[in-house]
Amino acid sequence: MGFGFKIKYTKYIGFIEKLRNNMPEKKKKLSIIVFSGDFDKLTAVFTLATGAAAVDYEVNLFFTYWGFNAIKRKKGHAFTGKGLLAGIFNFLMGGFNNLPLSRMNFGGISPKLMTGMMKRRNVATLSQLLEAAKELRVNFYACEMSMAILGIKLEELITPVREVIGVAKFLKLSEGGETLFI
Amino acid sequence: MGFGFKIKYTKYIGFIEKLRNNMPEKKKKLSIIVFSGDFDKLTAVFTLATGAAAVDYEVNLFFTYWGFNAIKRKKGHAFTGKGLLAGIFNFLMGGFNNLPLSRMNFGGISPKLMTGMMKRRNVATLSQLLEAAKELRVNFYACEMSMAILGIKLEELITPVREVIGVAKFLKLSEGGETLFI
Amino acid sequence: MGFGFKIKYTKYIGFIEKLRNNMPEKKKKLSIIVFSGDFDKLTAVFTLATGAAAVDYEVNLFFTYWGFNAIKRKKGHAFTGKGLLAGIFNFLMGGFNNLPLSRMNFGGISPKLMTGMMKRRNVATLSQLLEAAKELRVNFYACEMSMAILGIKLEELITPVREVIGVAKFLKLSEGGETLFI
Repeated sequence: MGFGFKIKYTKYIGFIEKLRNNMPEKKKKLSIIVFSGDFDKLTAVFTLATGAAAVDYEVNLFFTYWGFNAIKRKKGHAFTGKGLLAGIFNFLMGGFNNLPLSRMNFGGISPKLMTGMMKRRNVATLSQLLEAAKELRVNFYACEMSMAILGIKLEELITPVREVIGVAKFLKLSEGGETLFI
Repeated sequence: MGFGFKIKYTKYIGFIEKLRNNMPEKKKKLSIIVFSGDFDKLTAVFTLATGAAAVDYEVNLFFTYWGFNAIKRKKGHAFTGKGLLAGIFNFLMGGFNNLPLSRMNFGGISPKLMTGMMKRRNVATLSQLLEAAKELRVNFYACEMSMAILGIKLEELITPVREVIGVAKFLKLSEGGETLFI
Repeated sequence: MGFGFKIKYTKYIGFIEKLRNNMPEKKKKLSIIVFSGDFDKLTAVFTLATGAAAVDYEVNLFFTYWGFNAIKRKKGHAFTGKGLLAGIFNFLMGGFNNLPLSRMNFGGISPKLMTGMMKRRNVATLSQLLEAAKELRVNFYACEMSMAILGIKLEELITPVREVIGVAKFLKLSEGGETLFI
């Protein structure tokens, strides 16, 4: 006999909906391409990342370009990377301690002011958010191409970064979830 | 007997596809994290928001950081927010009437020029787009953490903003739709 | 008789999962709203676009605002577009040969330095990425509203741009895939 095409569609629909609702839910996913090295944008990145991880999302951060400012081991202006040009570029780019604000930076005073305001309001600072992200097992990935251009090696990045990947791998990781470019 | 495992897969697939196509469609969704306070980027935000709402999308705008420039009730440079630092910060940040261009701002002349060009071409200006967004029932949400840092209260925001939410709530709202960070 | 409501849910679920896994997969999709005209951000756009196209994604690029710098036929500072204001704006905006870096532009030296670093590391340069995108059949769309504001006609854009579309059409194209705003 068979499949019951005699039953009305509405019934089928209710049936399939019921199935759907009873299916084991897939883990939700948030993936962020961290392009920016600005203090305010990185604060947004880590606020989203920790907020999502706290409600049990899988979170993937893919650091590229200026985003490397957040994951370079040397936090000041340091002459790192293979080659003279890369060295100069990395030096000028700075690190975690020199993140500018995307607007109204006032020569670097603003990020310090903002950190002060955040402490006063009991809002987690950027360093605290980064630590929280590690503890919540947010996944840190470094962009292959940026590593090549900046002449940087994996050992020069902070420990949560365990893997260097390219675009294809990132797309696979982020598939089926929400993806942001920041 | 049962479920008809005797029937060929292709038949099942056709059947399920048919079901899928006959199911009441879920409302499509566009959610935007409005981080920027730049004139040009806000124009993009409201063009996307109204365009999507017009073709019957659910649209959620989550204003954070500089994006507050678009929703603060005081449109000029105003000393608002609790605390001295927050006051100064809000003053410098300005409001809807002081939105800079993300590039080639020329001391604030460009946004005015661009508004002129938009009027001439019969393209909706930013103020008109904001009004349209309200009428099309675009949802306005304010970021909890930004409110805390800037020391701002709900009453200081324009009326379409009805709720202050955090990351977890935003993720829930945006789930299953398209999400952008602007 | 019918549909076998006697069978346990777990069995149904396994059955539906099996169906799902055997269904012809939909083509994956990456859509990018190309708002920025910065050298570094455009490099990110075309790296993502070519990377995705290479692993068989449908890729849609929707050029708007400063993103027109990547698709205007005149690559230098050229007085194009209908009307005096538009002409001046287009002239100042420049084209493919004048893309600034979003940070540390140093009067336009940085993009040249970076291109040098990219060649040295055997990383594809922006021009090469643009060519690759064409060959990989990445879809180029120009934003209707930006065309109007800038007073530009389709003939003034590079050949891969075949269609001028609005927000509603873009949402339809990007539906069900990953969408980024860069």
